[in-house]
Amino acid sequence: MNPPEPPLLVAARGDIPSQVPVWFMRQAGRSLPEYRALRANESILEAIQRPDLAAEITLQPVRRYGVDAAILFSDIVVPVAAIGVGVEIVPGRGPVIAEPFRGASDLLRLRPLIPEEDTPYVLETIAIAKRELNVPLIGFAGAPFTVASYLIEGGPSRTFTRTKALMYNDEPTWFALMEALAEIALASLRSQVAAGVDAIQLFDSWAGALSRRDYARYVLPASRHVLEGIGATGTPRIHFGVGTGELLELMAGAGTDVIGVDWRTSLADASPRVGRGYCLQGNLDPAVVLAGVAATHREAARILQEGADHGPHIFNLGHGVLPETDPGVLTDLVEFVHNFARAAT
Amino acid sequence: MNPPEPPLLVAARGDIPSQVPVWFMRQAGRSLPEYRALRANESILEAIQRPDLAAEITLQPVRRYGVDAAILFSDIVVPVAAIGVGVEIVPGRGPVIAEPFRGASDLLRLRPLIPEEDTPYVLETIAIAKRELNVPLIGFAGAPFTVASYLIEGGPSRTFTRTKALMYNDEPTWFALMEALAEIALASLRSQVAAGVDAIQLFDSWAGALSRRDYARYVLPASRHVLEGIGATGTPRIHFGVGTGELLELMAGAGTDVIGVDWRTSLADASPRVGRGYCLQGNLDPAVVLAGVAATHREAARILQEGADHGPHIFNLGHGVLPETDPGVLTDLVEFVHNFARAAT
Repeated sequence: MNPPEPPLLVAARGDIPSQVPVWFMRQAGRSLPEYRALRANESILEAIQRPDLAAEITLQPVRRYGVDAAILFSDIVVPVAAIGVGVEIVPGRGPVIAEPFRGASDLLRLRPLIPEEDTPYVLETIAIAKRELNVPLIGFAGAPFTVASYLIEGGPSRTFTRTKALMYNDEPTWFALMEALAEIALASLRSQVAAGVDAIQLFDSWAGALSRRDYARYVLPASRHVLEGIGATGTPRIHFGVGTGELLELMAGAGTDVIGVDWRTSLADASPRVGRGYCLQGNLDPAVVLAGVAATHREAARILQEGADHGPHIFNLGHGVLPETDPGVLTDLVEFVHNFARAAT
Repeated sequence: MNPPEPPLLVAARGDIPSQVPVWFMRQAGRSLPEYRALRANESILEAIQRPDLAAEITLQPVRRYGVDAAILFSDIVVPVAAIGVGVEIVPGRGPVIAEPFRGASDLLRLRPLIPEEDTPYVLETIAIAKRELNVPLIGFAGAPFTVASYLIEGGPSRTFTRTKALMYNDEPTWFALMEALAEIALASLRSQVAAGVDAIQLFDSWAGALSRRDYARYVLPASRHVLEGIGATGTPRIHFGVGTGELLELMAGAGTDVIGVDWRTSLADASPRVGRGYCLQGNLDPAVVLAGVAATHREAARILQEGADHGPHIFNLGHGVLPETDPGVLTDLVEFVHNFARAAT
C-alpha cells in the first residue's frame, strides 16, 4: 500500500485533504534562534552555497513547527548572482545590486543559467533535504518582473520608478529582459524539479505595484512562459505576490495550480475572482502573529472558514514571517490549523 | 450674474462640469524648479511656517500648470508638530519622529489642537493664497491611522508592524489615540474651512496596509468622525489612500463626496464598488508621467473614458508627483484633460 499523498499536494491539485496543509513563507530564517545560531558568521548568499548548512536551515522549521512543507533555503537573486550579476543581500534591507541595470547594454550581463554548473549547491541542498524530509519540499524562483525590479532599482523600492520608466520607454529592452529572466527562472525551476522538489512557488512579490493593464502587457507573458514550462513537468505550481487583489484573475490564469493571496484581499473576495478551479494559499497578516495567540486564533479561524467555503486551501501568512515573530505562536498556529481541519471533516 | 461654479466643486457635489477638473497631489514641491529656488535654505517645516512663502509655493503650480485647484502647501504632521511632538521631515525619506509612541503614556503628548494659536501660519497662508487664487483651494489633514503610523513607527514603514501590534494588543490605547488624532484633524480642518479653503482632502495614505476587517474595526470610526464633522460645514470632502482597492466601499461610506483611487484599481473597477453617488478622483500612475507625453496621453485617455463612464470625475495622479517628474509633461497633461472634456460634451 502506498503512503497517503501529502495534504499540500492533495490541495494543490484541487482536492480536499484530510487536514488543511500549512506552511509559512520565510519559515526558515531570521525568526528562528536555531537559524541565528547556525548562520552566525556567514552572509546569506554564503550560507546558501553550503548545501549541508542550507539543507539544515531548510529542515529547521519542519522540525520545530510541524508544517506540511519545507521551502528550500535560497533566495530569488541566487540565479542572477550565479551568472555574474554583482548582488549582496543586506540584512534588514534586502538584495542590493552593485551596478543596477540601465538599458539595452545590460542585457549582455544575463547569459543563460546552466543550473548544474552555476548553482550545483542548490541541487545538492535539495538532495540532502529530500533524504531527511517526510513532507513535500517546495522549490522557488523569482518571477521576471520582481527580479527585474531589483536589477533596475538596484535594491528594494517603494515606487518602482526606474523599472516602470524602462518598461514604458524602451519596450524592446524590457521584453528582452523579461524573456531572459523567464528563461533563467524556468531553467532554475526545472533543475529543482529534476533534483526532487515536490512543488514550486513563483514569487512575483512586487507585481502589485502595477495596474492590471501594465501587468497584462508587460509582465504576464513572461510569467506564463515560466509557469507553463513547469506545468509540463506535472509539478504543482504556486503563484504569489503582495497587494495583487486586482491581478488575481490574471495571475491565476497565467498557469498555476495555487494562487497566493495577501491579507489585503480576503479569501472570500479572492474566491470569485479566480474561480473554483484553483487552490487558494494564504492569508494571515504576518503582523497579527506578533499580537499573540488569541488574536492569531481569531483571524486564523476566519481565514480557515473562508478557505473551506472556497474549496482547496493551503494555509499560510499573507507575506513572509516577520523577524520579530515569536516562534511559539507559529507552533501553536500549526496545531490550530490542523485541528480546525479535523473538526470540519 | 454670479461667476460659474468652478469645475472641481461641480464634480465634487456629483454633477458633471463643462470640463474635467484636474489637479495633482504634490503638485507644489520638489518637482518644480521655482519651488527649489524659493526653498533653498529652509526645511519644509520652516517653509510651512512662513505664510508669504507657503502661499507662494501653493500658487506656483496653478500658474505653471493651469490646474483646477490649488492645494495648501503644508504637511500632514504639521498639527502634531505644532502641539509639541518632535518631528522632522527628512528629504527623500519623510516625517521622522524624535521619540516614537510606544504605549498609553504617550497619549499625554497629544493635547487638543487650538489652530488659531498652534498653527496661525496655516490660516494666514490660506488667507494670502485665497486673495490671489481664481481656482478653489484644497485644505487637508492626515487621517488618524496614517498619522498614528508615523508616530508609532517613528517614520515611513513598509510593514507597519509596531502600529498593528499596538492596535491588536492594546485596544484601549489604540482607540484613545485614534480619537485624539481625529479631534486634532477635525480641529485643523475646521479652522482651514473657516479661513477659506473650498474643499478638503483627508489623506489616509497608508490605510491600504490593512485588511478590510481591521480597517472597519480600528480605523473607520475615527475617519468617519472627521469626515462627518466637516460634512456639517457643507465643504466638499475627498478621501484618499494608496492600495485601497478592497477598502473603497468602506472609505466612501465613511462620509465623503469624492473618493480617491490609486492606479492599482481602475476607475471602471472602482465605480461599482463605491456606487454612483460619489465622485471618483484619480488615477494615473505617477511613474507613467516619467515615460513622456505619448505614454501619458494614452493612459490619460483610458482613465478619462472610465471616469466619464462612471459620472463625476476629478482627474489626478494615483499618488503624489514624483520628484523626477518633468513639469512640461504635466502642463501638457492638464491641457489634454481639458480638451478631452470639450470633445465629450
